[in-house]
Amino acid sequence: MNDLFIHQLQDVYYAEKQLVKALPKMAEKATDKLLKQGFLTHLDETKTHVQRLEEVFRMRGAEAKAVNCPAIDGIIKEANEIAGDVEDKNVLDAALIAAAQAVEHYEITRYGTLIAWAKQLGRSDCAAVLAETLAEEKATDEKLTSMAETKVNSNAELETA
Amino acid sequence: MNDLFIHQLQDVYYAEKQLVKALPKMAEKATDKLLKQGFLTHLDETKTHVQRLEEVFRMRGAEAKAVNCPAIDGIIKEANEIAGDVEDKNVLDAALIAAAQAVEHYEITRYGTLIAWAKQLGRSDCAAVLAETLAEEKATDEKLTSMAETKVNSNAELETA
Repeated sequence: MNDLFIHQLQDVYYAEKQLVKALPKMAEKATDKLLKQGFLTHLDETKTHVQRLEEVFRMRGAEAKAVNCPAIDGIIKEANEIAGDVEDKNVLDAALIAAAQAVEHYEITRYGTLIAWAKQLGRSDCAAVLAETLAEEKATDEKLTSMAETKVNSNAELETA
Repeated sequence: MNDLFIHQLQDVYYAEKQLVKALPKMAEKATDKLLKQGFLTHLDETKTHVQRLEEVFRMRGAEAKAVNCPAIDGIIKEANEIAGDVEDKNVLDAALIAAAQAVEHYEITRYGTLIAWAKQLGRSDCAAVLAETLAEEKATDEKLTSMAETKVNSNAELETA
């Protein structure tokens, strides 16, 4: 069970590090100012998430190491593909929001699992550190949902039939 | 916006079809009876989700077509890798639950996006069909969470230090 926990930790560590690279590009592509700023704010948070994972590695006496995570690679690849295809700037923003939400949901499920496993391992201290990040991921997802529902998509090309 | 909607629909269509293939294998690997049955029940639901997507394609006058979705491929690949590494049967079940939850969260985010976009396109009828599936995906995720917290993990090897 501990091996599985450490493996999952390495997987999420890789995902967060990939996200540190991807977020500035997403901020650059975003046309809506609020969305652009949102990506940059989440970049700062993500850097903290990386540090928190390093803290949990230390608490478990394990080396902070990233293992390749095909899931997050796939999500980011898909985001780049879709964003590359879109010309209308409002539709592009809608696509970027959707991509960011896919990333957030991936992280939400992984942190949820890590927290459950940390508790099973009797390490509520590790669970507490991970829960701080989970709360921030959920808050980001909610912000993105509200942006998708109001600000950005309301400007997007509408079709009523 | 409609192009983006159809593209996302094709992406989820691919994901659901991949899942129809993956779930029987996950059911086969699961050792806990309740978990095994849960995967088979969700297989039936997933077949209905495929049909609902075909219905939405028809409602939009588009051909039901799947586009390659690297995200779901990555999630399933990761599930197979982790499940292949685990020998302890209770830990294996915990890993299978985590993998299934990653799939559910991927679907939850994609259906959430599709519903928002359908509404933007003035197609609350499409949104309603997609919302039926979203509700089932969320219910499955909740069942998995409760299994992770009680039935399966409670049997898993515990470490208290």
